[in-house]
Amino acid sequence: MSFKLVAKDKQARAGVLRTAHGEINTPIFMPVGTQASVKSLSPNDLIEAKAQIILGNTYHLYLRPGDELIRDLGGLHNFMSWPKPILTDSGGFQVFSLAKLRKLTRDGVEFSSHIDGSKHFFTPEKVMQIQKNLGSDIMMVLDECVPYGADYDYTRSSVGITTYWAKRCREFYPSGKQLLFGIVQGGFFKDLREESARQITNIPFDGYAIGGLSVGEPKAQMIEFLYFTAPLLPEDKPRYLMGVGKPLDILEGIRAGVDMFDCVLPTRNARNGTLYTSKGKINIKREEYKRDLSPLDPECNCYTCRNFSKAYLRHLYTSRELLAYRLNTLHNITYFLNLVNQARASIFNGTFENFYNHIKSIYTC
Amino acid sequence: MSFKLVAKDKQARAGVLRTAHGEINTPIFMPVGTQASVKSLSPNDLIEAKAQIILGNTYHLYLRPGDELIRDLGGLHNFMSWPKPILTDSGGFQVFSLAKLRKLTRDGVEFSSHIDGSKHFFTPEKVMQIQKNLGSDIMMVLDECVPYGADYDYTRSSVGITTYWAKRCREFYPSGKQLLFGIVQGGFFKDLREESARQITNIPFDGYAIGGLSVGEPKAQMIEFLYFTAPLLPEDKPRYLMGVGKPLDILEGIRAGVDMFDCVLPTRNARNGTLYTSKGKINIKREEYKRDLSPLDPECNCYTCRNFSKAYLRHLYTSRELLAYRLNTLHNITYFLNLVNQARASIFNGTFENFYNHIKSIYTC
Repeated sequence: MSFKLVAKDKQARAGVLRTAHGEINTPIFMPVGTQASVKSLSPNDLIEAKAQIILGNTYHLYLRPGDELIRDLGGLHNFMSWPKPILTDSGGFQVFSLAKLRKLTRDGVEFSSHIDGSKHFFTPEKVMQIQKNLGSDIMMVLDECVPYGADYDYTRSSVGITTYWAKRCREFYPSGKQLLFGIVQGGFFKDLREESARQITNIPFDGYAIGGLSVGEPKAQMIEFLYFTAPLLPEDKPRYLMGVGKPLDILEGIRAGVDMFDCVLPTRNARNGTLYTSKGKINIKREEYKRDLSPLDPECNCYTCRNFSKAYLRHLYTSRELLAYRLNTLHNITYFLNLVNQARASIFNGTFENFYNHIKSIYTC
Repeated sequence: MSFKLVAKDKQARAGVLRTAHGEINTPIFMPVGTQASVKSLSPNDLIEAKAQIILGNTYHLYLRPGDELIRDLGGLHNFMSWPKPILTDSGGFQVFSLAKLRKLTRDGVEFSSHIDGSKHFFTPEKVMQIQKNLGSDIMMVLDECVPYGADYDYTRSSVGITTYWAKRCREFYPSGKQLLFGIVQGGFFKDLREESARQITNIPFDGYAIGGLSVGEPKAQMIEFLYFTAPLLPEDKPRYLMGVGKPLDILEGIRAGVDMFDCVLPTRNARNGTLYTSKGKINIKREEYKRDLSPLDPECNCYTCRNFSKAYLRHLYTSRELLAYRLNTLHNITYFLNLVNQARASIFNGTFENFYNHIKSIYTC
């Protein structure tokens, strides 16, 4: 067994996930390293921020520099000099959100590269082969993330395709050093979520993800489907809420029984000057920080907060200095990792609900 | 005495320069931190690269965030969290190269900000006050860097103004914790160089700089005036060749008896993918590095060379990843600092000429 639950507090779980590149304490947030780099951070920065696992994007790495090149150079870990676990997505989400001229069939999805317009075809087997080449610790099956607003018939048919693709992925890679996670879809129809969960959890995956949330729906609907879907997943396997989210969303996920999260929010926001602190979000561009000698967050122990004032960070940002992106990103990633770490500690202490309410009082959305 | 010569090898000198923020072993290269940041690097990176002193640009810091703001926040060292020495230029060079609507009079120079078009007036006293506010360890006098191609009469008159300004600077700051360097100009007329050197070295500065070289003249002319001007400066004071240069130019400077150098070349080139190695310059964009698992420079011990392959650096660069700028800059700065460090060691060993010839065989220009 690669996953062990070590504590529970109501539905919230603390666990340990064993991978080929080491153990991960859950709940965990995975910084996104789209193109074999968590934007602006070095591996040392990530280790300083206490990152345990990062995410790589199959779609991007397949297009540039190419998964076969990365395989030939010793795999993604060697390529980017990152010694800890990596999860790769299937590339499907980027095909639907970024690539052009998509054509979905039962066999897979054809698309044109957003970089050079070249044509490509992703099948379940193809994305498994790419992820094998990348050598990630956790691979994801190809799925269709149903767009928000899709009707019942479209969603039902899509659930069927996602299950068919999931089976083909598992058959292509029945077992090995790399873990493989299935993905539950079903849009915003509870019976389809149940149907998808039943079908996907019937396939012996190493973990199960909830896909298709945070795709444009109202927050209340996201929360409703999160709490509805999480209990449909096996208790003894890691649960991953894909592409989520804001600090409070992550705590909602943990509260619903989810173990793993990823999102571009802390890295992307950092590059836009939006920074997360124990007192809430701040925008470092604001005039009020011009003479502010205090650190971003006195409760944070990251390199940025140990060494620099808000006044300096504001200056770097308004002067478009490259260092701004790194110092901001380092801080935001540290904030997200501290958040899940504190959640984990509170689960052990049986005080998760207090912690959840505390964060809810700071981050209302 | 703030400067002590500790070894000589023909004209090449090794020294120690004492400042308010510590000692500097010369010859030394000073990375340029234009806007209170050496582009893409943190203070920790600079210390990892063994930087002993960095340069700040008075013109930029005066305009943004403002020297009075920096003074109020504890000075430039505190502001940017850099504990070691800082040299600030006078701002004159940027006024002539970057600002708009310049108007030079005997009293100073009026200009419009390149950022917002606002009008400003730099006098010798004004640039001293700004540098006092910044709290740099070494301040530079206001001078006019005569453009290449200026005729004899213009240059002679400019030399007079530069001397007049130098006196006013020294009178404004007769002595104190901050060192103050004079600047020799004189364009490409030997008698004017002699005249400027005589006048400037008559004023009791803590060091003397050679200005007005590397401004567009042919390389041979630069070298000729470097070797002509350096011996006109006092033996017992540090000598600084402003804005120079390429690796071989720096070694020519050391060979001519210069102790200090600064240039945006290693940082700017790094951001363009041009990297310096013990085998010469390379452009990391080139197709030939696509599968190259070797480090940039096997003889280099920087973080970049210890951890990453050329293939990865090429990928980061061609993917426009922010990390590319930092890893490249860290390497180039390390190369330049190693270069002057090795030069220093060779001066102690009496083998500087060999080292100079070695670098000359690699970097023909």
